[in-house]
Amino acid sequence: MKIAILPGDGIGPEIVTQAVKVLNALDEKFELETAPVGGAGYEASGHPLPEATLALAKAADAVLFGAVGDWKYDTLDRPLRPEQAILGLRKNLGLFANLRPAILYPELAGASTLKPEVVSGLDILIIRELTGDIYFGQPRGVRECPDGPFKGQREGFDTMRYAEGEIRRIAHVAFQAAQKRDKRLTSVDKANVLETFQFWKDIVTDVHKEYPDVALDHMYVDNAAMQLVRAPKKFDVIVTGNMFGDILSDAAAMLTGSIGMLPSASLDANNKGLYEPSHGSAPDIAGKGIANPLATILSAAMMLRFSLGKPEQADRIENAVKAVLAQGLRTGDIHEAGTTKVGTEQMGDAVVKAL
Amino acid sequence: MKIAILPGDGIGPEIVTQAVKVLNALDEKFELETAPVGGAGYEASGHPLPEATLALAKAADAVLFGAVGDWKYDTLDRPLRPEQAILGLRKNLGLFANLRPAILYPELAGASTLKPEVVSGLDILIIRELTGDIYFGQPRGVRECPDGPFKGQREGFDTMRYAEGEIRRIAHVAFQAAQKRDKRLTSVDKANVLETFQFWKDIVTDVHKEYPDVALDHMYVDNAAMQLVRAPKKFDVIVTGNMFGDILSDAAAMLTGSIGMLPSASLDANNKGLYEPSHGSAPDIAGKGIANPLATILSAAMMLRFSLGKPEQADRIENAVKAVLAQGLRTGDIHEAGTTKVGTEQMGDAVVKAL
Ligand SMILES: CC(C)[C@H](C(=O)O)[C@@H](O)C(=O)O
Ligand SMILES: CC(C)[C@H](C(=O)O)[C@@H](O)C(=O)O
Repeated sequence: MKIAILPGDGIGPEIVTQAVKVLNALDEKFELETAPVGGAGYEASGHPLPEATLALAKAADAVLFGAVGDWKYDTLDRPLRPEQAILGLRKNLGLFANLRPAILYPELAGASTLKPEVVSGLDILIIRELTGDIYFGQPRGVRECPDGPFKGQREGFDTMRYAEGEIRRIAHVAFQAAQKRDKRLTSVDKANVLETFQFWKDIVTDVHKEYPDVALDHMYVDNAAMQLVRAPKKFDVIVTGNMFGDILSDAAAMLTGSIGMLPSASLDANNKGLYEPSHGSAPDIAGKGIANPLATILSAAMMLRFSLGKPEQADRIENAVKAVLAQGLRTGDIHEAGTTKVGTEQMGDAVVKAL
Repeated sequence: MKIAILPGDGIGPEIVTQAVKVLNALDEKFELETAPVGGAGYEASGHPLPEATLALAKAADAVLFGAVGDWKYDTLDRPLRPEQAILGLRKNLGLFANLRPAILYPELAGASTLKPEVVSGLDILIIRELTGDIYFGQPRGVRECPDGPFKGQREGFDTMRYAEGEIRRIAHVAFQAAQKRDKRLTSVDKANVLETFQFWKDIVTDVHKEYPDVALDHMYVDNAAMQLVRAPKKFDVIVTGNMFGDILSDAAAMLTGSIGMLPSASLDANNKGLYEPSHGSAPDIAGKGIANPLATILSAAMMLRFSLGKPEQADRIENAVKAVLAQGLRTGDIHEAGTTKVGTEQMGDAVVKAL
């Protein structure tokens, strides 16, 4: 089985190195092939998603992705900026289902900015549609405003769109995920204002008929943002569109206070997927050897479970991560008095040892 | 000076009654005229924003609004649902600037789900554009999908749009608000994905030239949602579009744990405005006499300051509210051990007494 390794920019290479070390320490052997992406892709061949990188990602059984982005690329034209690589991979590989667990490890309860009673034991799963919505909808651009009081001025515009089949397939993923958990699904929309999300709500309601064992409720996105702050543990699985999911999944991740721990999976219709940490490329700490590699290591575990059919190996990695936390090892981002501060490489080594 | 009083649905009438009592207790006398809106408008004349109500709101110098919405209207066609009244008022009155302070009163620090050190002393101002964006952009609807893999299926769609002048005027409001505070403005966008918000960012950057004394920074909306949870006190003034502002202002309000305390103002180009509590109509507790009237009373204070040119009267009300909090009076939503639980009417009476 072949895994495309795309380290990217900033702390990407350091954290991916640790995840690769963990993969290589398993009994199962995988073929790993590395390619540049993001700013590194641009440096190597003038485009954030070089053709060879995309071809490798397409040919592989799964993709392990680090992170992309650095301030030094901020002045490039938008199509050349690092983030375009991740959008291009999602669209070209058809990775429409983004799974982002927000879990608070008991050992890290203190890292949250929320009171312990509000977040301890938090375990929610946000499922974000990833290839539709206003992220990709055409037409978009800057044009002359065609009507209204600002007619004739320049205006920026974008199109939000969701087709029936696009909503159905993400709804199926969400109901099936809920079936494997506490059987409660919250569909987040803005049906009181947006046609797209009234349609979303109607289709999700229709798909629900096939999953009578799952309790479905609908919530407006503004209320969902409030409830995540007020009582996040009341959620089990949340499903929403690309734009709302971008915002809510980051807010949910931050509730844990330890975004350096949170993996994510982006899956296509056949469970092929791209796996990446929920955090970004953190160029400010790149190369210092202090970044937390655990989100990337846990992303590799998700990869083994969802795309490579190796749940036992996934369990091994996840248990090893729990073990190093129990040993009191912490990178700087999650360090507290009474625990042992370690660097990126030491953390990776500790996970390998605990395997 | 004439004030249109629109109590609306749910707890709206109860809380507005208390605010009216406070207004009537001031030395200045105002002409108050009441009209039905939302579900009450629909009951009275078949439309959530009856023509006479809109005419009154247009003719008045300011509007004091309660809240709209009740589950019993959920099955109505969208154009007849209570929320359409608030959208219609915003659009018809040109109320493009929504000011939503998120303030944590020292006495209520315990009400937040966040740790005291993260939120104590919180005082941020969110300025949300209120008459543009995907809320009103045409075209929108459900149609046959014109292209792509889902071609021929039904799809829901909406248009996000911002014209140059629309962005300029809200940017001016935001820079001027920042000048009166800590002179720091964060413009929230999604310029890495949306054409509308790249354009937004460019225009805000241009308007900044006229306000060299204000420090401007730009933040992506997903990161803003995270930073509100991680370190909300780092913000001073936030300006953003209608859709992102809907989500972020509710999240920010909930950080305080006491959304029952938070007023809001929606202003036109001449500082005429609509004033309403940040919370909703709470039909589950309507008629029980337990709702918190303070957000509405504080909205009346904002009205005196921004639209009616009576800052001293506004100060009096705000000081009276601080006094009742200091006396230990609390409605159920903000009640804690060691304080005195009171009902809606008692709370209103206490504010009048403290004036
Ligand atoms: C980098 C950016 C385009 C991307 C997104 O908005 O989807 C990121 O925020 C994410 O959530 O993966
Ligand atoms: C009721 C609804 C249409 C409205 C909005 O989305 O603007 C509300 O959430 C608000 O923030 O005032």
